[in-house]
Amino acid sequence: MKKKASSANMNFRPHFKTHQSDIVALWFMREGIMKITVSSVSMAYQFAEQGWQDITIAFPCNIREIESINHLGGLVKINLLVDSVGSAKFLANNLFQPTDIYIEIDAGYHRSGAAWNDDATISSILDIIHYSKYTYFKGFLTHSGNTYQAKDKEDILEIFNDTRNRLLSLKEKHAPDAIISIGDTPSCSIVNKFDGLNEIRPGNFVYYDLMQQFLGVCSFSDIAVAMACPVVSIYPNRREMVIYGGAIHFSKENLMHANEGKIYGIPVKITDNGWGDFLQESFLVRLSQEHGIIKAPGFILDQYKIGDLIGVLPVHSCLTAGLMKERSMVVS
Amino acid sequence: MKKKASSANMNFRPHFKTHQSDIVALWFMREGIMKITVSSVSMAYQFAEQGWQDITIAFPCNIREIESINHLGGLVKINLLVDSVGSAKFLANNLFQPTDIYIEIDAGYHRSGAAWNDDATISSILDIIHYSKYTYFKGFLTHSGNTYQAKDKEDILEIFNDTRNRLLSLKEKHAPDAIISIGDTPSCSIVNKFDGLNEIRPGNFVYYDLMQQFLGVCSFSDIAVAMACPVVSIYPNRREMVIYGGAIHFSKENLMHANEGKIYGIPVKITDNGWGDFLQESFLVRLSQEHGIIKAPGFILDQYKIGDLIGVLPVHSCLTAGLMKERSMVVS
Repeated sequence: MKKKASSANMNFRPHFKTHQSDIVALWFMREGIMKITVSSVSMAYQFAEQGWQDITIAFPCNIREIESINHLGGLVKINLLVDSVGSAKFLANNLFQPTDIYIEIDAGYHRSGAAWNDDATISSILDIIHYSKYTYFKGFLTHSGNTYQAKDKEDILEIFNDTRNRLLSLKEKHAPDAIISIGDTPSCSIVNKFDGLNEIRPGNFVYYDLMQQFLGVCSFSDIAVAMACPVVSIYPNRREMVIYGGAIHFSKENLMHANEGKIYGIPVKITDNGWGDFLQESFLVRLSQEHGIIKAPGFILDQYKIGDLIGVLPVHSCLTAGLMKERSMVVS
Repeated sequence: MKKKASSANMNFRPHFKTHQSDIVALWFMREGIMKITVSSVSMAYQFAEQGWQDITIAFPCNIREIESINHLGGLVKINLLVDSVGSAKFLANNLFQPTDIYIEIDAGYHRSGAAWNDDATISSILDIIHYSKYTYFKGFLTHSGNTYQAKDKEDILEIFNDTRNRLLSLKEKHAPDAIISIGDTPSCSIVNKFDGLNEIRPGNFVYYDLMQQFLGVCSFSDIAVAMACPVVSIYPNRREMVIYGGAIHFSKENLMHANEGKIYGIPVKITDNGWGDFLQESFLVRLSQEHGIIKAPGFILDQYKIGDLIGVLPVHSCLTAGLMKERSMVVS
């Protein structure tokens, strides 16, 4: 991803919300990465404490946290997002030091961001940023999370191109010097021509997960995170076993598998230094708070006994890593 | 719930996994409750430290935690679940002190538990418990979580009656002195005749939630938990607003609402000492890691500005309270 960014002459500002790990963060630091993205003020603090000095908080600024934001902004360079006149005014009136501001743009995903074609709002925000003492307009930033609903790679490329064209038209119209920053891992993974874009902020690629594999963005062998779950019971008659691994570990994120219906993860064999093959025809099919139910054929159940560990590739690595962060072990 | 248990001459052993709060736990203690249920060894430690001395760990024993189990068992009385010959043998060989054991029974939910009609397994487990030095058979325990899939109260009663009959037939056949313990909040809330049962372990009733209301188990006014979420942006054109409240706060648990499709929570007005009315025709309709999207009519959006707080009644209070436990505030 770093090579991709540098060969396209773009800034690489990886999103750290996926791993939230000081160890993984160090790997980036050793690669010479200096700028990062996080999704909350508390996560910005975590990485500021580790020594990161240029942090974009990629979430529409929560003005109730202004005290923490000002405090943190006195320690390291933080960059904030606004997507409304209200937030822009609040920051103009309440920031204590010079701060780079991105206008978050909704280029079609409809999560957060000012609508890309809402010229009135964008102009007003630009004016407020321009005339206030401590706010400096940096650029337009978007997260095209709609690529996660894509049917295939073609679809991802189409969403990427729409996003890119919309952002470039904005830049042309409102602010020729604006930096254009995009974020989603699907686009960053499969696109090779980023003409006109200045920054990428992918996060999920550090681990990938079943959702990305399902989209065709990565292969199974690219998935770099698995949860090790103890087998707590085996039910040969039901062709199921129960693992200690439930909604508090995986969230309730799921995928629709063509044959199996809703699945919450795919089991793999734990090996001495990580994990290996899939458990054939086996799926994590139900979750409650602490229980996970794996459906598996008899010949798989026969290979396990109570107390053994099974690996589970998660549907969404960000949520799993987030839930497990205090207890996770990184294998390099 | 305490009155219900005592008038039916049953032991009341509330499940603390829903709240995981030392403050709520104290309310139970002041009511004279002495015995509790938890869902993990670490949760048992938390409440042992608070002074609870009789704790059932209602999860099929994870034998990899035997060291912690033995340590904790030396400090307070813990009661364990087994549902397999394998676990029973392991505990027989590895426990350091006398321990009450429940056999977990699958009475139809198909999560964990020995199948209620698997006489061979149940007899073998009973023999192992009987002949080993430190294991004492206490009773049959079940969680009829299938009541959560019920269509209405009638359905819940039918599941309860099936469960009860199956457990009583087991007791008659295998162990006339066994305690019969049931757990699910739907049954415990609506059933009034518990003939033959000796213990109830509901947990969710302490807060209830939208799922219970949806099942007809409680009314909206019984729901005693709401998440206060800051408004971070408002999009009048989309008839939506974004709150700081996502999958890391609510998990991804959802309900199918008749008109709205998937919903992740229902917004309410925050008041000086809690929360009040619903935001009319408004629903939490999408979630990503930190973002929540509320769909709301224009006249509701007009009442809010960036930085205001909105309450959200969660779909599943256990997961929400679990995720928020370090940051939650209890309003008595």
